[in-house]
Amino acid sequence: MPHLIVEYSRNLAGFPEAQALAELNAAVCASPEVADEADLKSRIAPVPQFEIGTAPANRGFVHAQLRLLSGRTPEAKKDLSERVAGVLRRLTPHPAGVMVQLSVEIVDMDRPSYVKERL
Amino acid sequence: MPHLIVEYSRNLAGFPEAQALAELNAAVCASPEVADEADLKSRIAPVPQFEIGTAPANRGFVHAQLRLLSGRTPEAKKDLSERVAGVLRRLTPHPAGVMVQLSVEIVDMDRPSYVKERL
Amino acid sequence: MPHLIVEYSRNLAGFPEAQALAELNAAVCASPEVADEADLKSRIAPVPQFEIGTAPANRGFVHAQLRLLSGRTPEAKKDLSERVAGVLRRLTPHPAGVMVQLSVEIVDMDRPSYVKERL
Repeated sequence: MPHLIVEYSRNLAGFPEAQALAELNAAVCASPEVADEADLKSRIAPVPQFEIGTAPANRGFVHAQLRLLSGRTPEAKKDLSERVAGVLRRLTPHPAGVMVQLSVEIVDMDRPSYVKERL
Repeated sequence: MPHLIVEYSRNLAGFPEAQALAELNAAVCASPEVADEADLKSRIAPVPQFEIGTAPANRGFVHAQLRLLSGRTPEAKKDLSERVAGVLRRLTPHPAGVMVQLSVEIVDMDRPSYVKERL
Repeated sequence: MPHLIVEYSRNLAGFPEAQALAELNAAVCASPEVADEADLKSRIAPVPQFEIGTAPANRGFVHAQLRLLSGRTPEAKKDLSERVAGVLRRLTPHPAGVMVQLSVEIVDMDRPSYVKERL
Protein backbone atom coordinates (compact mmCIF):
# COMPACT_ATOMS: atom_id res chain seq x y z
CA MET A 1 0.00 0.00 0.00
CA PRO A 2 2.72 2.58 0.34
CA HIS A 3 2.74 5.59 -1.92
CA LEU A 4 5.98 7.44 -2.45
CA ILE A 5 5.89 10.91 -4.00
CA VAL A 6 9.15 12.71 -4.78
CA GLU A 7 9.35 16.32 -5.94
CA TYR A 8 12.46 18.31 -6.79
CA SER A 9 13.00 21.89 -7.81
CA ARG A 10 13.64 22.29 -11.51
CA ASN A 11 17.04 23.90 -10.95
CA LEU A 12 18.43 20.47 -9.98
CA ALA A 13 19.11 19.69 -13.62
CA GLY A 14 19.98 16.16 -14.54
CA PHE A 15 18.08 14.56 -11.68
CA PRO A 16 18.26 10.81 -12.43
CA GLU A 17 14.53 10.20 -12.12
CA ALA A 18 14.33 6.59 -13.26
CA GLN A 19 17.40 5.53 -11.30
CA ALA A 20 16.11 7.27 -8.19
CA LEU A 21 12.76 5.50 -8.40
CA ALA A 22 14.42 2.13 -8.91
CA GLU A 23 16.77 2.59 -5.96
CA LEU A 24 14.07 4.09 -3.72
CA ASN A 25 11.80 1.15 -4.41
CA ALA A 26 14.58 -1.32 -3.67
CA ALA A 27 15.42 0.43 -0.41
CA VAL A 28 11.82 0.74 0.79
CA CYS A 29 10.75 -2.75 -0.30
CA ALA A 30 13.70 -4.20 1.66
CA SER A 31 11.96 -3.00 4.83
CA PRO A 32 10.03 -5.65 6.78
CA GLU A 33 7.11 -3.20 6.75
CA VAL A 34 6.48 -3.83 3.05
CA ALA A 35 4.86 -7.24 2.69
CA ASP A 36 4.51 -7.23 -1.11
CA GLU A 37 6.90 -5.29 -3.34
CA ALA A 38 4.13 -4.70 -5.87
CA ASP A 39 2.34 -2.53 -3.31
CA LEU A 40 4.82 0.32 -3.51
CA LYS A 41 3.69 2.93 -6.01
CA SER A 42 6.30 5.65 -6.52
CA ARG A 43 6.36 8.78 -8.64
CA ILE A 44 8.80 11.60 -9.19
CA ALA A 45 8.37 14.99 -10.84
CA PRO A 46 10.17 18.29 -11.12
CA VAL A 47 8.58 21.44 -9.68
CA PRO A 48 8.70 24.16 -12.34
CA GLN A 49 7.60 27.13 -10.21
CA PHE A 50 9.01 27.34 -6.70
CA GLU A 51 10.45 29.80 -4.19
CA ILE A 52 12.48 28.95 -1.11
CA GLY A 53 12.38 31.49 1.70
CA THR A 54 12.74 35.20 1.20
CA ALA A 55 16.46 35.83 0.74
CA PRO A 56 17.81 36.36 -2.80
CA ALA A 57 19.80 33.11 -2.67
CA ASN A 58 20.23 30.28 -5.12
CA ARG A 59 18.39 27.39 -3.53
CA GLY A 60 16.89 24.06 -4.48
CA PHE A 61 15.11 21.20 -2.77
CA VAL A 62 14.12 17.60 -3.01
CA HIS A 63 11.22 16.38 -0.92
CA ALA A 64 9.78 12.89 -0.52
CA GLN A 65 6.52 11.90 1.05
CA LEU A 66 5.91 8.27 1.97
CA ARG A 67 2.27 7.49 2.71
CA LEU A 68 1.63 4.28 4.68
CA LEU A 69 -1.39 2.70 6.28
CA SER A 70 -1.53 3.77 9.92
CA GLY A 71 -0.25 1.51 12.68
CA ARG A 72 3.53 1.51 12.19
CA THR A 73 5.77 2.09 15.20
CA PRO A 74 7.80 5.29 15.45
CA GLU A 75 10.92 3.18 14.97
CA ALA A 76 9.60 1.66 11.74
CA LYS A 77 8.64 5.08 10.41
CA LYS A 78 12.04 6.51 11.22
CA ASP A 79 13.73 3.58 9.53
CA LEU A 80 11.64 4.10 6.40
CA SER A 81 12.36 7.82 6.18
CA GLU A 82 16.08 7.07 6.56
CA ARG A 83 15.90 4.54 3.74
CA VAL A 84 14.39 7.17 1.48
CA ALA A 85 16.81 9.86 2.60
CA GLY A 86 19.78 7.58 2.01
CA VAL A 87 18.97 7.18 -1.66
CA LEU A 88 18.14 10.83 -2.27
CA ARG A 89 21.24 12.02 -0.40
CA ARG A 90 23.34 10.00 -2.83
CA LEU A 91 21.53 10.71 -6.10
CA THR A 92 20.34 14.31 -5.85
CA PRO A 93 22.43 16.61 -8.08
CA HIS A 94 24.35 19.48 -6.44
CA PRO A 95 24.66 22.23 -9.02
CA ALA A 96 27.51 24.62 -8.24
CA GLY A 97 26.36 27.53 -6.11
CA VAL A 98 22.97 26.07 -5.22
CA MET A 99 22.12 25.31 -1.59
CA VAL A 100 20.08 22.10 -1.76
CA GLN A 101 17.72 20.93 0.96
CA LEU A 102 16.53 17.35 1.40
CA SER A 103 13.46 16.42 3.41
CA VAL A 104 11.47 13.23 3.92
CA GLU A 105 8.05 12.99 5.45
CA ILE A 106 6.10 9.94 6.59
CA VAL A 107 2.30 10.19 6.44
CA ASP A 108 -0.17 7.85 8.11
CA MET A 109 -3.14 6.96 5.92
CA ASP A 110 -6.50 6.18 7.51
CA ARG A 111 -6.69 2.40 7.48
CA PRO A 112 -10.42 1.64 7.96
CA SER A 113 -11.54 3.73 4.99
CA TYR A 114 -8.71 2.77 2.64
CA VAL A 115 -9.67 0.91 -0.54
CA LYS A 116 -7.12 -1.23 -2.33
CA GLU A 117 -7.70 -3.74 -5.07
CA ARG A 118 -6.40 -5.09 -8.34
CA LEU A 119 -8.57 -4.37 -11.35
CA MET B 1 -15.06 21.63 1.30
CA PRO B 2 -13.96 18.28 -0.04
CA HIS B 3 -10.97 18.08 -2.32
CA LEU B 4 -10.63 15.09 -4.61
CA ILE B 5 -7.28 14.42 -6.28
CA VAL B 6 -6.96 11.57 -8.77
CA GLU B 7 -3.66 10.41 -10.25
CA TYR B 8 -3.10 7.62 -12.73
CA SER B 9 0.03 6.15 -14.28
CA ARG B 10 0.59 7.32 -17.84
CA ASN B 11 0.51 3.77 -19.22
CA LEU B 12 -3.27 3.74 -18.70
CA ALA B 13 -3.76 5.35 -22.08
CA GLY B 14 -7.19 6.68 -22.92
CA PHE B 15 -8.19 7.40 -19.34
CA PRO B 16 -11.51 9.27 -19.66
CA GLU B 17 -10.50 12.19 -17.48
CA ALA B 18 -13.50 14.46 -17.95
CA GLN B 19 -16.02 11.63 -17.69
CA ALA B 20 -14.32 10.33 -14.55
CA LEU B 21 -14.45 13.73 -12.88
CA ALA B 22 -18.11 14.19 -13.77
CA GLU B 23 -19.08 10.76 -12.46
CA LEU B 24 -16.90 11.06 -9.36
CA ASN B 25 -18.46 14.39 -8.48
CA ALA B 26 -21.95 13.00 -8.98
CA ALA B 27 -21.18 9.99 -6.78
CA VAL B 28 -19.54 11.98 -3.99
CA CYS B 29 -22.06 14.84 -4.01
CA ALA B 30 -24.87 12.28 -3.63
CA SER B 31 -23.47 11.52 -0.17
CA PRO B 32 -25.29 13.16 2.76
CA GLU B 33 -21.86 14.33 3.92
CA VAL B 34 -21.66 16.90 1.13
CA ALA B 35 -23.96 19.79 1.97
CA ASP B 36 -23.31 21.92 -1.13
CA GLU B 37 -22.29 20.34 -4.43
CA ALA B 38 -20.23 23.44 -5.30
CA ASP B 39 -17.86 22.59 -2.45
CA LEU B 40 -16.35 19.58 -4.17
CA LYS B 41 -13.21 20.52 -6.04
CA SER B 42 -11.82 17.63 -8.07
CA ARG B 43 -8.77 17.25 -10.27
CA ILE B 44 -7.21 14.48 -12.26
CA ALA B 45 -3.78 14.14 -13.83
CA PRO B 46 -1.55 11.48 -15.35
CA VAL B 47 1.75 10.61 -13.65
CA PRO B 48 4.49 10.64 -16.29
CA GLN B 49 7.34 9.14 -14.24
CA PHE B 50 6.46 6.26 -11.93
CA GLU B 51 7.71 2.87 -10.77
CA ILE B 52 5.68 0.19 -9.04
CA GLY B 53 7.60 -2.22 -6.83
CA THR B 54 10.85 -3.86 -7.85
CA ALA B 55 9.87 -6.72 -10.17
CA PRO B 56 10.24 -6.24 -13.93
CA ALA B 57 6.47 -6.38 -14.46
CA ASN B 58 4.09 -4.27 -16.48
CA ARG B 59 2.07 -2.39 -13.88
CA GLY B 60 -0.13 0.64 -13.58
CA PHE B 61 -2.15 2.38 -10.92
CA VAL B 62 -4.94 4.82 -10.25
CA HIS B 63 -5.07 6.52 -6.86
CA ALA B 64 -7.62 8.91 -5.43
CA GLN B 65 -7.33 11.04 -2.35
CA LEU B 66 -10.43 12.63 -0.86
CA ARG B 67 -9.68 15.35 1.68
CA LEU B 68 -12.53 16.24 4.04
CA LEU B 69 -12.88 18.43 7.09
CA SER B 70 -12.35 16.26 10.18
CA GLY B 71 -15.26 14.93 12.16
CA ARG B 72 -16.81 12.32 9.87
CA THR B 73 -17.66 8.91 11.27
CA PRO B 74 -15.68 5.87 10.14
CA GLU B 75 -18.84 4.66 8.38
CA ALA B 76 -19.22 7.91 6.45
CA LYS B 77 -15.58 7.80 5.40
CA LYS B 78 -15.85 4.20 4.25
CA ASP B 79 -18.98 5.03 2.27
CA LEU B 80 -17.20 7.92 0.56
CA SER B 81 -14.16 5.87 -0.39
CA GLU B 82 -16.46 3.20 -1.82
CA ARG B 83 -18.28 5.82 -3.90
CA VAL B 84 -14.98 6.94 -5.38
CA ALA B 85 -13.75 3.38 -5.92
CA GLY B 86 -16.98 2.42 -7.65
CA VAL B 87 -16.51 5.01 -10.36
CA LEU B 88 -12.80 4.35 -10.87
CA ARG B 89 -13.32 0.58 -10.94
CA ARG B 90 -15.69 1.07 -13.84
CA LEU B 91 -13.85 3.73 -15.83
CA THR B 92 -10.15 2.93 -15.43
CA PRO B 93 -8.68 1.45 -18.63
CA HIS B 94 -7.17 -2.05 -18.49
CA PRO B 95 -4.50 -2.22 -21.17
CA ALA B 96 -3.66 -5.78 -22.18
CA GLY B 97 -0.85 -7.21 -20.09
CA VAL B 98 -0.83 -4.47 -17.48
CA MET B 99 -1.63 -5.27 -13.84
CA VAL B 100 -3.62 -2.25 -12.64
CA GLN B 101 -4.02 -1.31 -8.98
CA LEU B 102 -6.77 0.93 -7.62
CA SER B 103 -6.56 2.67 -4.26
CA VAL B 104 -8.63 5.30 -2.49
CA GLU B 105 -7.59 7.24 0.57
CA ILE B 106 -9.62 9.49 2.85
CA VAL B 107 -7.76 12.32 4.58
CA ASP B 108 -9.04 14.38 7.49
CA MET B 109 -8.28 18.08 7.19
CA ASP B 110 -7.75 20.17 10.32
CA ARG B 111 -11.03 21.97 10.80
CA PRO B 112 -10.19 24.89 13.15
CA SER B 113 -7.45 26.29 10.92
CA TYR B 114 -9.21 25.72 7.59
CA VAL B 115 -10.04 28.81 5.54
CA LYS B 116 -12.80 28.68 2.96
CA GLU B 117 -14.44 31.56 1.16
CA ARG B 118 -15.75 32.76 -2.16
CA LEU B 119 -13.80 35.58 -3.75
CA MET C 1 10.58 22.98 7.50
CA PRO C 2 7.27 24.25 6.18
CA HIS C 3 6.12 23.21 2.76
CA LEU C 4 3.59 25.37 0.95
CA ILE C 5 1.78 23.95 -2.08
CA VAL C 6 -0.57 26.18 -4.06
CA GLU C 7 -2.81 24.91 -6.86
CA TYR C 8 -5.23 26.93 -8.98
CA SER C 9 -7.65 25.96 -11.69
CA ARG C 10 -6.38 26.78 -15.15
CA ASN C 11 -9.33 29.05 -15.92
CA LEU C 12 -7.82 31.68 -13.58
CA ALA C 13 -5.72 33.03 -16.43
CA GLY C 14 -2.96 35.44 -15.60
CA PHE C 15 -2.36 34.13 -12.11
CA PRO C 16 0.77 35.99 -10.93
CA GLU C 17 2.68 32.89 -9.87
CA ALA C 18 6.05 34.39 -9.02
CA GLN C 19 4.56 37.38 -7.23
CA ALA C 20 2.24 35.13 -5.24
CA LEU C 21 5.12 32.92 -4.10
CA ALA C 22 7.22 35.93 -3.10
CA GLU C 23 4.39 37.50 -1.12
CA LEU C 24 3.31 34.20 0.43
CA ASN C 25 6.84 33.50 1.60
CA ALA C 26 7.16 36.98 3.06
CA ALA C 27 3.85 36.62 4.91
CA VAL C 28 4.55 33.15 6.26
CA CYS C 29 8.19 33.83 7.19
CA ALA C 30 7.06 36.86 9.20
CA SER C 31 5.32 34.45 11.57
CA PRO C 32 7.16 33.66 14.80
CA GLU C 33 6.57 29.99 13.95
CA VAL C 34 9.17 30.09 11.18
CA ALA C 35 12.63 30.16 12.74
CA ASP C 36 14.66 30.27 9.51
CA GLU C 37 13.26 31.80 6.33
CA ALA C 38 15.26 29.34 4.22
CA ASP C 39 13.12 26.52 5.59
CA LEU C 40 9.99 27.53 3.69
CA LYS C 41 9.75 25.67 0.41
CA SER C 42 6.85 26.88 -1.71
CA ARG C 43 5.51 25.82 -5.08
CA ILE C 44 2.60 26.83 -7.27
CA ALA C 45 1.05 25.15 -10.28
CA PRO C 46 -2.07 25.37 -12.39
CA VAL C 47 -4.50 22.42 -12.49
CA PRO C 48 -5.29 21.64 -16.12
CA GLN C 49 -8.10 19.12 -15.61
CA PHE C 50 -10.62 19.91 -12.88
CA GLU C 51 -14.33 19.85 -12.12
CA ILE C 52 -16.10 21.71 -9.33
CA GLY C 53 -19.37 20.22 -8.13
CA THR C 54 -22.09 18.98 -10.44
CA ALA C 55 -23.93 22.09 -11.65
CA PRO C 56 -23.14 23.45 -15.13
CA ALA C 57 -21.60 26.62 -13.68
CA ASN C 58 -18.43 28.49 -14.46
CA ARG C 59 -16.25 27.93 -11.42
CA GLY C 60 -12.62 28.13 -10.40
CA PHE C 61 -10.55 27.60 -7.29
CA VAL C 62 -7.28 28.31 -5.60
CA HIS C 63 -6.16 26.02 -2.81
CA ALA C 64 -3.11 26.20 -0.57
CA GLN C 65 -1.74 23.53 1.71
CA LEU C 66 0.81 24.46 4.36
CA ARG C 67 2.59 21.45 5.88
CA LEU C 68 4.29 22.05 9.23
CA LEU C 69 5.99 19.86 11.78
CA SER C 70 3.43 18.90 14.41
CA GLY C 71 3.22 20.71 17.73
CA ARG C 72 1.86 24.13 16.80
CA THR C 73 -1.02 25.57 18.81
CA PRO C 74 -4.44 25.96 17.18
CA GLU C 75 -3.94 29.73 17.37
CA ALA C 76 -0.62 29.55 15.53
CA LYS C 77 -2.14 27.37 12.84
CA LYS C 78 -5.08 29.69 12.38
CA ASP C 79 -2.73 32.67 12.13
CA LEU C 80 -0.69 30.92 9.46
CA SER C 81 -3.70 29.97 7.36
CA GLU C 82 -4.91 33.57 7.56
CA ARG C 83 -1.52 34.83 6.39
CA VAL C 84 -1.74 32.59 3.34
CA ALA C 85 -5.37 33.47 2.67
CA GLY C 86 -4.62 37.17 2.88
CA VAL C 87 -2.15 37.02 0.02
CA LEU C 88 -4.25 34.76 -2.17
CA ARG C 89 -7.39 36.82 -1.58
CA ARG C 90 -5.57 39.83 -2.95
CA LEU C 91 -3.70 38.27 -5.87
CA THR C 92 -6.04 35.62 -7.26
CA PRO C 93 -7.57 36.72 -10.59
CA HIS C 94 -11.36 37.02 -10.83
CA PRO C 95 -12.30 36.38 -14.45
CA ALA C 96 -15.72 37.79 -15.35
CA GLY C 97 -18.48 35.27 -14.80
CA VAL C 98 -16.36 32.79 -12.84
CA MET C 99 -17.24 31.96 -9.23
CA VAL C 100 -13.85 31.56 -7.53
CA GLN C 101 -13.31 29.66 -4.30
CA LEU C 102 -10.33 30.09 -2.01
CA SER C 103 -9.29 27.52 0.59
CA VAL C 104 -6.29 27.08 2.86
CA GLU C 105 -5.41 23.95 4.76
CA ILE C 106 -2.84 23.40 7.49
CA VAL C 107 -1.33 19.91 7.76
CA ASP C 108 0.67 18.54 10.67
CA MET C 109 3.71 16.50 9.62
CA ASP C 110 4.94 13.66 11.83
CA ARG C 111 7.90 15.14 13.67
CA PRO C 112 9.82 12.08 14.95
CA SER C 113 10.20 10.49 11.52
CA TYR C 114 10.87 13.70 9.60
CA VAL C 115 14.26 13.99 7.89
CA LYS C 116 15.68 17.40 7.06
CA GLU C 117 19.19 18.27 6.01
CA ARG C 118 21.27 20.38 3.68
CA LEU C 119 23.16 18.45 1.04
